[in-house]
Amino acid sequence: MKLLRWGPKGQEKPAILDKQGTARDLSGLVPDIAGPVLSDTGLAMLRGLDTANLPQVPQDARLGPCVGQTGKVICIGLNYSDHAAETGAQVPPEPITFMKATSALCGPNDPIIIPRGSEKTDWEVELAIIIGTTARYVSEDNALTHVAGYAVANDVSERAWQMEHSGQWTKGKSSDNFGQVGPWLVTRDEVSDPQALGLWLSVNGSKKQDGSTKTMVYGAAFLVSYLSRFFTLHPGDIVMTGTPPGVGLGMKPPQFLKPGDVVELGIDGLGQQRQDVVVDPRG
Amino acid sequence: MKLLRWGPKGQEKPAILDKQGTARDLSGLVPDIAGPVLSDTGLAMLRGLDTANLPQVPQDARLGPCVGQTGKVICIGLNYSDHAAETGAQVPPEPITFMKATSALCGPNDPIIIPRGSEKTDWEVELAIIIGTTARYVSEDNALTHVAGYAVANDVSERAWQMEHSGQWTKGKSSDNFGQVGPWLVTRDEVSDPQALGLWLSVNGSKKQDGSTKTMVYGAAFLVSYLSRFFTLHPGDIVMTGTPPGVGLGMKPPQFLKPGDVVELGIDGLGQQRQDVVVDPRG
Repeated sequence: MKLLRWGPKGQEKPAILDKQGTARDLSGLVPDIAGPVLSDTGLAMLRGLDTANLPQVPQDARLGPCVGQTGKVICIGLNYSDHAAETGAQVPPEPITFMKATSALCGPNDPIIIPRGSEKTDWEVELAIIIGTTARYVSEDNALTHVAGYAVANDVSERAWQMEHSGQWTKGKSSDNFGQVGPWLVTRDEVSDPQALGLWLSVNGSKKQDGSTKTMVYGAAFLVSYLSRFFTLHPGDIVMTGTPPGVGLGMKPPQFLKPGDVVELGIDGLGQQRQDVVVDPRG
Repeated sequence: MKLLRWGPKGQEKPAILDKQGTARDLSGLVPDIAGPVLSDTGLAMLRGLDTANLPQVPQDARLGPCVGQTGKVICIGLNYSDHAAETGAQVPPEPITFMKATSALCGPNDPIIIPRGSEKTDWEVELAIIIGTTARYVSEDNALTHVAGYAVANDVSERAWQMEHSGQWTKGKSSDNFGQVGPWLVTRDEVSDPQALGLWLSVNGSKKQDGSTKTMVYGAAFLVSYLSRFFTLHPGDIVMTGTPPGVGLGMKPPQFLKPGDVVELGIDGLGQQRQDVVVDPRG
């Protein structure tokens, strides 16, 4: 099952993709793709719907992030051994964990906004885990039962702000529109193995990243269990699981995004995103 | 003006402290101490109220965090020169910035929950800035006009998780009940100089921290302006501005919290908090 959200930013409505690939509005049935709707019970209710009579979402509708009411976005750093190598870093002995501000989240095709003063805005295709039910102190064996599903994410990063302005990465990860998530939340029953998904990203049609989640150091089940040792995961929380090789920072010489660039990215079975790179309209 | 929130966790109602110090319920007038209520217009409306006819909040009511709908909690590290010295660190050339999960937020007198496996749970009294209106690319001169007010915060920290488990501090800052905020949001008109506030913390009646915001390296106006370079600040966002000397990690030998301890803390004009230290009831 593929769930999505559509409409103006901050006012998105829930929708479901039917068997023909048409988005059907769910706003008469559930308030949002969020909270209890993400539980196994909520998802089973949606799975049982006859979508044929639901209103069609306009084909040119803006898509929002595929999940709402996200309380936190937890990102994992250097989680692909080959990506760690390209940045000159060691694979960490435990997952490097940092947060991206929820105010950075946006729809899958919303522009990448280069913030004022940025010179090193970079891309990162990532598998996003969408939490479905509250998870605290959960075992690795049990972890994926707390996952509603998966989505494509672009963990957009300003490298100078991440690494050249006094420790801690949050500053370089949290600018507005630095977190495209979607197009869909693909429920976990449709992802037989989250560690066997191809993922790619191109800039202006030139392939930059072309990897597989099979080279992740810490897999989805481990990460959910690991994070739940430190804090409670809630429905709608997002875990961005790190990026494969091919980011701009790793190029020789490094390459960064500039206004007018077009970024496209996708993951097997989870759909694609397309973003225009723009200057901040606020100047 | 002093604003607060009361009731069960997650269902808090808004309230105001009247001139006699009695909390009066505002839930018939505004939905929450959050969003547009935090703007100058919203606060002016509350300031004009005749509180005499508002229902009294029960004296034994639980208090929640004094602000709702918090999208992000931004914390500043090593922001007191004397605290940096006690931890053996240099004063950073720019503010060290990291996030605390919003799921860690709780009321001012809610217990400090020692998470499973923790051996180094520590205290940090901090001045919290509560954002009142959207702030992006704001100047230092203009920054405080975006602040609704201030509050006492305890930036509870697990030192081993913060520093001994692969970089980035978030893991040690985000456990449930690691962020007591309140009792009140004191509006900024009542805080003539946020850089001249005494702040203190005691454990079991023994004073551990006794400092002043005058020794902050980066002050409130600078921080709001600085952070607004990297992302948009929204109403209800909280900036925890760092802690003065006297944390457990800085003691020789280090001292950490244990079940049965009582932590009390306060800031001049902003009120006091009191917390019992407990083991995680979830085992």
